[in-house]
Amino acid sequence: MILTVTLNTALDVTYRVPELRPHASHRVTEVIERPGGKGLNVARVLAALGHDTVVTGFVGGVTGTVLRQLLARFAAAPPDTAGAPHGTITDALVPIAGTTRRTIGVVDATTGDTTQLNEPGPIVTTPEWTAFMDGYGRLLREASAVALCGSLPPGVPVGTYAQLIREAHAAGVPTLLDTSGEPLRRGIAARPHLVKPNADELAGLTGSTDPLRAARDARRRGARAVAASLGAEGMLAVTAHGAWRAAPPRRLAGNPTGAGDAAVAGLLSGLVEEVPWPDRLARAVALSAAAVRAPVAGEFDRTVYEEVLARVEVTEHPAAA
Amino acid sequence: MILTVTLNTALDVTYRVPELRPHASHRVTEVIERPGGKGLNVARVLAALGHDTVVTGFVGGVTGTVLRQLLARFAAAPPDTAGAPHGTITDALVPIAGTTRRTIGVVDATTGDTTQLNEPGPIVTTPEWTAFMDGYGRLLREASAVALCGSLPPGVPVGTYAQLIREAHAAGVPTLLDTSGEPLRRGIAARPHLVKPNADELAGLTGSTDPLRAARDARRRGARAVAASLGAEGMLAVTAHGAWRAAPPRRLAGNPTGAGDAAVAGLLSGLVEEVPWPDRLARAVALSAAAVRAPVAGEFDRTVYEEVLARVEVTEHPAAA
Repeated sequence: MILTVTLNTALDVTYRVPELRPHASHRVTEVIERPGGKGLNVARVLAALGHDTVVTGFVGGVTGTVLRQLLARFAAAPPDTAGAPHGTITDALVPIAGTTRRTIGVVDATTGDTTQLNEPGPIVTTPEWTAFMDGYGRLLREASAVALCGSLPPGVPVGTYAQLIREAHAAGVPTLLDTSGEPLRRGIAARPHLVKPNADELAGLTGSTDPLRAARDARRRGARAVAASLGAEGMLAVTAHGAWRAAPPRRLAGNPTGAGDAAVAGLLSGLVEEVPWPDRLARAVALSAAAVRAPVAGEFDRTVYEEVLARVEVTEHPAAA
Repeated sequence: MILTVTLNTALDVTYRVPELRPHASHRVTEVIERPGGKGLNVARVLAALGHDTVVTGFVGGVTGTVLRQLLARFAAAPPDTAGAPHGTITDALVPIAGTTRRTIGVVDATTGDTTQLNEPGPIVTTPEWTAFMDGYGRLLREASAVALCGSLPPGVPVGTYAQLIREAHAAGVPTLLDTSGEPLRRGIAARPHLVKPNADELAGLTGSTDPLRAARDARRRGARAVAASLGAEGMLAVTAHGAWRAAPPRRLAGNPTGAGDAAVAGLLSGLVEEVPWPDRLARAVALSAAAVRAPVAGEFDRTVYEEVLARVEVTEHPAAA
C-alpha cells in the first residue's frame, strides 16, 4: 500500500456565492463538504487509479468526526470512478483532543475564482505525537512509498518532516515530500527521494526564479529528485538519470485547487509501478489537468485525464553543464 | 419568562483575517463560534438584563450539537455580565434531521469591516413542524411576551409568522416581529404588537423612504406599533400613543452585527416591564450602541450601555396630520 501523511487535515468546505463582494452579506447557494488536507486528496486520487492507500495524520473534534464520516463514504463508493479500477482507502488517522480545522473555499459564480479561508490547525500534544510516531513506524512496514503532505499544525516542530523521512529511510520506504517554507528546507536536507514544489516554493527555497536552475540547486541541497509544477505550463523533473519537461496540449480553465495533489498521486503511482520518468511526468501532468476540470480537490475528470495523457509532450533537457 | 423564536438558528462563526482580498488565500488568525440566529442573540441580551428567557426554533446535525453546547455554556456563565443581574436561558429548541446552518463573518483586521457568508437553512419536515407548534403552544402559556426573529428556513411557509402571531393572540401574549420581505408583510397583517424593521425593510414594505411616513403606513397595514432602526441615527417609534425619535449622543464605530437584536431585547424588556415608550426607545438605542462596541452578536458593552442610556436624546413627533 501507499501511505500518505497529513499532519494538518481539514474539513474542506466549498461555498458557492453569486458574486463575492467584500463587506457585503451573501447568501451561500451551495455548500459542499469534503475530507481535506493534501494527503487525503492524494489518497483519493491514488485509490481512483487502483492503488490501496492508508491515510494517517491527526483528527479531532466535531469537524474531525465529519471528516472521518466523509472519508469512509468516499472509501466505500468514490463518486467519480464508475467502472474504473479502485483501490482501498484505510483510515489510520490518530485522534486528538483538539478540533480539526476547516478550510473554506468561496467560489464566485460570476468569475469562477475561489477565495480561500484557512483556519489554523489544532494544537498537538506530546502524547498525541508519540501515538502518531508509533503508528507511523508500524505503517511503514507495509508501505511501498510514503507521501508527506502539507503544512504543519501549530506546535509540531519545523524539523518534523526530516524526522519522518529518516524513519522511512530506515524502513527502506521511498519518500515524497510536498510542503513549503522552512519544513521543505529542513525536509530536503534529510534526502527525500522526491520533492514536488511549485515554481514559487522552489524560488523561495533556492532564491532562483529559473525553475531548471532552482531544481538543480534543490538536488544539491539533498532532494534525490525534484518534480516542479509550473502551473498551466506543466511540470519539470530533475533526477539522477536526466531532466524532462512535460507540457499539457492546451491550457484548461477550472479550479486549480487539488491539481498539485493529483500530480503527487501521479508521481507516486509511477514510482511504485516503476514507470520510466518521462511517462511518470506525463501521468502527473495529465492528472493535474484533469483535476483542474473537477469541481473539488481529490477528484479528477477521467475523460480529460485519458485525453491529455495521450497528448502530453515530454522533452528531455540536455545534461547540466 | 420571555420566549424568543428562531426558526433558522445558526452556528455563528467569526473569522479574523489580516486583510480580505478576493481570490487570494488567507490564513485565519482567530476563530470564534457562537450560538446564532437573531432570537438567540436577543435571549442572551435579555438574560444579561435580568430576564428569564426560553429559546425555541429548530436545531440539528453536528453544527446543531455545537450550537446547543455553546448555548448551555452561555446560559451557565455569560462572559460579559460580571456583577450584573442575570436571567436564565432555557433551551427549548426542537431537534430536526437536517443540519443547522453556519453563518461566517469574515472580519478584515485592516478596515474592521465584516463580510458575511450565510449558508441556507435545513429543510424542516411536516412532523418536525408539528412538534414545534405543539411546543410553541405550551410555551406560550408561560410567556409574558414572544419575539419572532429572523428568516424562515427553506420549506417553511411564508405565512408562518402570521400563524405564530395569531396563536400568541389567542394565548393573550404580546408579540414582537423582527423579519423582512414577504414574511414581514404577511406577519404584519396578523396584527403583531410591535415590528422592528430597519429603514430599508420599512421602505421595501411600504415603498416610502421617509421612515416616519413608512412607519405610519406599516401601522395602517396592521402593526400596532412600529420601532424602526435608523442605523447610527437611532430609532423611531410610531405607536397608538404617540411617535418618538431617539438618537445616541455620538456615532460609535464597531461591529453592527447584533445591534438590531440588542434593540429588540431593549424593546421587549421595556414592554414586559411596562416602561413608558420614550424610555423603552432610549433603552433600545443604548443597547444597540453598546452592542456595536462588543465584538460579537448577542453581547454588549455594559459601560457603553449605561453611559449612552444617560445621554440618549428622545424627541416627540407632532401627531400625524
